[in-house]
Amino acid sequence: MDYLLDGVTMSEILKLKSPADFIGKQGPGVISFGSGQPDLPPPKEAFEGIDLKRDLRYGLIQGELKLREALTYEYPGSTAENFVITNGASEALDLIFRSWGKGQKVLLPRPYYYSYLPIIEMAGMVPVFTDLVEGRIDLGDFHKKIKGCKAVLINSPSNPTGCVEAIETLKEIQKVTQQLGVYVVSDEVYKDLIYERENYHIEGNHVITINSFSKTYCMCGLRVGYLWSADKKIVEDVCEIKTHSSMNTNLIGQDMALAAMKTPREYIQKEQQIWRQRRDLIFKGLTDLGFDLWKPEGAFYVLPKCKNAREFLTVLYQDYKVITYLGEWFGAPDRIRLSYALDIKQIEEGLSRIKDAMKRVKVL
Amino acid sequence: MDYLLDGVTMSEILKLKSPADFIGKQGPGVISFGSGQPDLPPPKEAFEGIDLKRDLRYGLIQGELKLREALTYEYPGSTAENFVITNGASEALDLIFRSWGKGQKVLLPRPYYYSYLPIIEMAGMVPVFTDLVEGRIDLGDFHKKIKGCKAVLINSPSNPTGCVEAIETLKEIQKVTQQLGVYVVSDEVYKDLIYERENYHIEGNHVITINSFSKTYCMCGLRVGYLWSADKKIVEDVCEIKTHSSMNTNLIGQDMALAAMKTPREYIQKEQQIWRQRRDLIFKGLTDLGFDLWKPEGAFYVLPKCKNAREFLTVLYQDYKVITYLGEWFGAPDRIRLSYALDIKQIEEGLSRIKDAMKRVKVL
Repeated sequence: MDYLLDGVTMSEILKLKSPADFIGKQGPGVISFGSGQPDLPPPKEAFEGIDLKRDLRYGLIQGELKLREALTYEYPGSTAENFVITNGASEALDLIFRSWGKGQKVLLPRPYYYSYLPIIEMAGMVPVFTDLVEGRIDLGDFHKKIKGCKAVLINSPSNPTGCVEAIETLKEIQKVTQQLGVYVVSDEVYKDLIYERENYHIEGNHVITINSFSKTYCMCGLRVGYLWSADKKIVEDVCEIKTHSSMNTNLIGQDMALAAMKTPREYIQKEQQIWRQRRDLIFKGLTDLGFDLWKPEGAFYVLPKCKNAREFLTVLYQDYKVITYLGEWFGAPDRIRLSYALDIKQIEEGLSRIKDAMKRVKVL
Repeated sequence: MDYLLDGVTMSEILKLKSPADFIGKQGPGVISFGSGQPDLPPPKEAFEGIDLKRDLRYGLIQGELKLREALTYEYPGSTAENFVITNGASEALDLIFRSWGKGQKVLLPRPYYYSYLPIIEMAGMVPVFTDLVEGRIDLGDFHKKIKGCKAVLINSPSNPTGCVEAIETLKEIQKVTQQLGVYVVSDEVYKDLIYERENYHIEGNHVITINSFSKTYCMCGLRVGYLWSADKKIVEDVCEIKTHSSMNTNLIGQDMALAAMKTPREYIQKEQQIWRQRRDLIFKGLTDLGFDLWKPEGAFYVLPKCKNAREFLTVLYQDYKVITYLGEWFGAPDRIRLSYALDIKQIEEGLSRIKDAMKRVKVL
């Protein structure tokens, strides 16, 4: 008989194509290292002064002016015209690739966030992979492959690796792409979750920055993100598509994003302490269990090497009620991904269950 | 010197490609027959019981279960699995065409809602036009052109014509497409704004219904719409794209849509009375001025014939502060579109200004 857990059968889980299939499947007793979102509530500021009875007619396709003006303080030298507010970073990414011509190449570091590949392919563009070395971009390979590409898509801090690119690497990418006339799409949604240093914001007319309020302010379900570009044509092209594909981003979400921006910097620093503590716990725990993994410098993911990953994932889910994600969804078939967006007790319990499950499947 | 009104210069207005460019351009003294949205506030029910401090983590890609369950009462025989909640009807349309193969043909009655053509073309599909006769689908031409199409996109009540297809026509379309294995995408966002009869909901496994809370409940800026399909594969394919392109539809908007569904039917009937009164006023007013137009049976648009449309639009906007839309944006180059989502006084004032402007441009 097919094993059933929270509405998912074992035969179903083996068919899962992406982590999104797990959303909403968590139930009592389940420990989920799956979901890539903060478990913390939004800051109290996000709710202050929100008036549901505001004008709820169509808003500007580009996004509410006040929100875009507030963002200029985070992007020195910018104006409100440089931003487009979107339904999360996902829509920003989708729009930018759709705005480019079909058949053109996009350089994509691998492992990658699981939506990158479908977004590039749905736009009719062709991915060119550069494999990360020790979780970081290999500049030698990058230099070889960047030529002839329309764009490169980078993500630092990275989901799923947890790694942060060195500032020198980012500067080199910035320079080389500018010389070659290649666009850089820089997904910086984890910019406020770096444990080691400040974010380095790649700049230039050829840069499109993707960002979001979801991770910083713990409001993933509101779907408010944005893109930044100094190139007027890029902004216009993206707005032209959005005019037809979704129109304005929902207004209450934008109001809450603007309100959340009033959160004092200490909130983010406090958040970082929580994440760092969890990072230390899971990194030590998995290392002690014998896993080979990179120490996260940002975001909240680890991507340990794992033999028989599919079998291990299945046993963990079926018999130990622990959700983990297959590395293959992220272009890393010999690994599994764990999010540590969980409280300390759950991480400890999860590690203990993983230890037990390791007796059943040869993973090292 | 370039004339400037509310931030739009005359040289800009002559370059406008779509009505969306007007959004937010209205200013004091301007009468806008442009915007296709109710000017009325949402019903009070839409705000009742909304808790901003709800769980704001990711929701289901397909949409909140409670909202989808509530919708089953409007679609007898359906289950929650037949719905996908989207960022307005726009996203529902965009997703369905993206989910189909490139190069396939879509039959499109003309004039059409201005986003239909870009949505079809962005998906890489090929539009085939069937010209409306007296504002209605010509079944003879329909029968000829439907063969070999992947889908037909219909919109009754129609934006921009204000016409409602006869139930017999809709039944014939339903039958023929079923026989030929052609999908019907039926955009019914104005289903609650029919002055003459109840909506007829085209049914069948080959039908995808597009709908929205925007027009019925006056909440366009919240961006909550949905698609309905009895075909599980359609729902899965659409969710697969949405997983990457925008994830869940914003949760607060979905909560407000669910709350709005508790509005008594009398609200909608009262709304219809308001629209009917406005419809009568603008239809008589434009007819008295000599315009040739169809009497709207639903929605809130008129599409009168108009010579020198671009010049008239420009003069109306520049010298009389009246916004109208070019018929050419809707595939009707010899017409202009006016929305009557305005109070009676504004419609009267607008008609008076149009009368004056007609002395300057030969429109009849």
